[in-house]
Amino acid sequence: MAIHRHLGALFNPDTVAVIGASDNPGKLGFHVMKSLTQGGFTGRIVPMNPGAKKIMGIPSVPSIDGFQDPIDLAIVAVPAPLVPGIFEACEKKSVKGIVLISAGFKEIDDPSGAQQQSILERIVRRATIPVIGPNTFGVVNVHRNLNASFTPEFSRLKKGNIALVSQSGGICHLFAFMAMSQNVGMSEIVGLGNRLNVGFPEMITHLMEDPETEVLALYLEGLEDPRDLMETARAFRGRKPIVAYKTGRTRNRDQASISHTGSAAGDHELYEASFRQGRIFGVDSMEALLDAARAFSVCSLPKGPRIAILSGQAGPGISAHDTCEMGGLEIARFQPQTQRAINELLPPIALRTNPVDLGPAWYNSAAIRGILKTVMEDDHVDGILLLMMFASANREALENISSLLLEWKQRKPIITCLISPPGIWDGQVRELEMAGAMINLDTPERAAKCMTYLWQYKKMVN
Amino acid sequence: MAIHRHLGALFNPDTVAVIGASDNPGKLGFHVMKSLTQGGFTGRIVPMNPGAKKIMGIPSVPSIDGFQDPIDLAIVAVPAPLVPGIFEACEKKSVKGIVLISAGFKEIDDPSGAQQQSILERIVRRATIPVIGPNTFGVVNVHRNLNASFTPEFSRLKKGNIALVSQSGGICHLFAFMAMSQNVGMSEIVGLGNRLNVGFPEMITHLMEDPETEVLALYLEGLEDPRDLMETARAFRGRKPIVAYKTGRTRNRDQASISHTGSAAGDHELYEASFRQGRIFGVDSMEALLDAARAFSVCSLPKGPRIAILSGQAGPGISAHDTCEMGGLEIARFQPQTQRAINELLPPIALRTNPVDLGPAWYNSAAIRGILKTVMEDDHVDGILLLMMFASANREALENISSLLLEWKQRKPIITCLISPPGIWDGQVRELEMAGAMINLDTPERAAKCMTYLWQYKKMVN
Repeated sequence: MAIHRHLGALFNPDTVAVIGASDNPGKLGFHVMKSLTQGGFTGRIVPMNPGAKKIMGIPSVPSIDGFQDPIDLAIVAVPAPLVPGIFEACEKKSVKGIVLISAGFKEIDDPSGAQQQSILERIVRRATIPVIGPNTFGVVNVHRNLNASFTPEFSRLKKGNIALVSQSGGICHLFAFMAMSQNVGMSEIVGLGNRLNVGFPEMITHLMEDPETEVLALYLEGLEDPRDLMETARAFRGRKPIVAYKTGRTRNRDQASISHTGSAAGDHELYEASFRQGRIFGVDSMEALLDAARAFSVCSLPKGPRIAILSGQAGPGISAHDTCEMGGLEIARFQPQTQRAINELLPPIALRTNPVDLGPAWYNSAAIRGILKTVMEDDHVDGILLLMMFASANREALENISSLLLEWKQRKPIITCLISPPGIWDGQVRELEMAGAMINLDTPERAAKCMTYLWQYKKMVN
Repeated sequence: MAIHRHLGALFNPDTVAVIGASDNPGKLGFHVMKSLTQGGFTGRIVPMNPGAKKIMGIPSVPSIDGFQDPIDLAIVAVPAPLVPGIFEACEKKSVKGIVLISAGFKEIDDPSGAQQQSILERIVRRATIPVIGPNTFGVVNVHRNLNASFTPEFSRLKKGNIALVSQSGGICHLFAFMAMSQNVGMSEIVGLGNRLNVGFPEMITHLMEDPETEVLALYLEGLEDPRDLMETARAFRGRKPIVAYKTGRTRNRDQASISHTGSAAGDHELYEASFRQGRIFGVDSMEALLDAARAFSVCSLPKGPRIAILSGQAGPGISAHDTCEMGGLEIARFQPQTQRAINELLPPIALRTNPVDLGPAWYNSAAIRGILKTVMEDDHVDGILLLMMFASANREALENISSLLLEWKQRKPIITCLISPPGIWDGQVRELEMAGAMINLDTPERAAKCMTYLWQYKKMVN
């Protein structure tokens, strides 16, 4: 299928028609209009509704047939039985892409749904119009301020380089809200819905070419055949990292229970094998999906497994140490000159070997800076975890290492867990993150896990 | 040791002396004074420093000997060599408890540290004064506004019923900051430091009697003998839940590496066995420590493993389903009358069996309320997970079920994952949490895990 070639226009339209646009908040077409108009989209928005002259102050046209200019993207939010007619009008008009929000197709119990969907399939096969959906909340191209969805709040997303492609709209919402509250930027969000003619392979192909996207995050529940996905991913392997979260283990087991062959594990293993072959990095929670995507989008990959842990207090260093070793990382043995430099900077009351306890240097920011620098420059160190919990006495510590983090900027991967009560270090941490100096996680284990993701991914793509 | 009988006075003092109080921000005695004075403590604060007349505006006395009135708690932040003399003065004065912040004892490499500590041990054995520390950041009794620590920001904590006892001060800071940002209240925080004569057994005994504490969270790295802890916990088993996070697997392995017997696993297994015997709920991360403590402090325990998942979107329901089954929970089969009621409230386009997809009821809050009510009343349901991601169209859904959640108030355990962009649902969710209606977690997996904690704990204490 060469549908992916047409996806560029769908995600970068000049003129967008909203079929089923409405001024009634009880209609999804109302929320779609709000998303487009309030999201800062600079192209032309054309509401279509046979019963209105204007919608949200924008002149409305009754239907596609009555509109003279070309349409790049049609967002469709009308009852299912009306959709085939609209698709035919889109074909006649040479619309370049469709986002089909309407539900009531293959996903419903009633056989009329599947029947409706096969009618649509026939039309789009003939016309080669890419369709996102049906039964989707929509798509968002953050960089173009294109919020083609029924949730205006997606427009609050910061521009970034992580794209999400998901079989669940709910997961798209959750991922985006997590990204917002953690100040993570995104490039595109796509709810695939019933995947009429655009699925994971088409989206992967499109996103590999998308200049704004550096990391692909996928959420999937079950595919007819995961090998399609794997083969597409493999064709691009190494170009951009792909992280995937697959759920539905239990659901598949139920469906397969007739055979009593324990095929749930088999199914899960099939996905795991496909992921490995496609160099897709599999994760097991929403938190891990976001964290791994963030890590891959910001951090360099470690050359080896040897990690330095610099910790403002011993406890967090110990828990990070446990997590690192359980995830296949090693605690670096410093070179003699590094250890000598640390011994000069820290009094003998601290643990000065790796993990290094920076506690006694709280009042001596120059020492903390010196230790960080010498560890960064140690060829026996492949990555650094820097962990510090705020205490009044170490308030200045962060400010004194900021310039070093900025200057170093992931020449080796550096991941932090710098935590204070709300409002003290957050602003500085956020600035450093926005400059790409590091990513900051909210527990030592989560930070250490991110480092294991980097190393496991490095081994996978090598 | 009957030291625990004296801990009540240490945590509820009327007069607090700060030995080593200072107006110099470079001294820990400065931060301690700030913590006490700004934390709202209503008792008497007596700064002690031979070189000052007033500290932070409060009249200062040169030493304990020169002070006429009784002292309940002495907070000591002076160099280690001065501490034995101060301890003798405390003994003479019949001070009821000491928080010894000073470092430089058993924890340092230099043998003089251990020597200093054994001098202290002799004094306190004779005097039976309970001592928290040395080498601690301090203690906090949130309900008494007593911030006897070098971190004034602990005073921002909300009053609640979770107490933390930790071998690491860094972990105390992290836990408290996590609690602050998640709006979780606490009762007491204790950094044990080198455990001169107060360790986990003494603190557990004290907290079991503390009327403000309902759940005990412990962080430990390694004990001389975990059986002491286990036996104390077992004596109280069932009275109040205890959650424990043990780190230092890898560190213990290094220490034991001479024997080449793989004793790391043995060590970890010894703790696990001790935890089981003491009915201590073991967890494996800071996130789990906080989440389990929160769940035990708010939620009722499920009578059985049968869980209902009500999800505003299918995806989050599926991931929660996976997590539940992996954690030993079962997906409830509704009673026929429950299923009939749901079938009447939801159109056939949705998944109406458990997990229930509430998607089609977004515009019909009465239906969501009705479904929640009928599921709550189903005797085949032992606990409920309610998951909903905000979308403009379901904005009102939360408001319409709030009264039901408040009314029900954990008659059966109910855990939610109600997530919106910052500033939309947060306020409502927070109010419901503060009223004890439920706890809200930020991913479906984390919510489902909390339900597994409740069930696993229920099985452990039965």
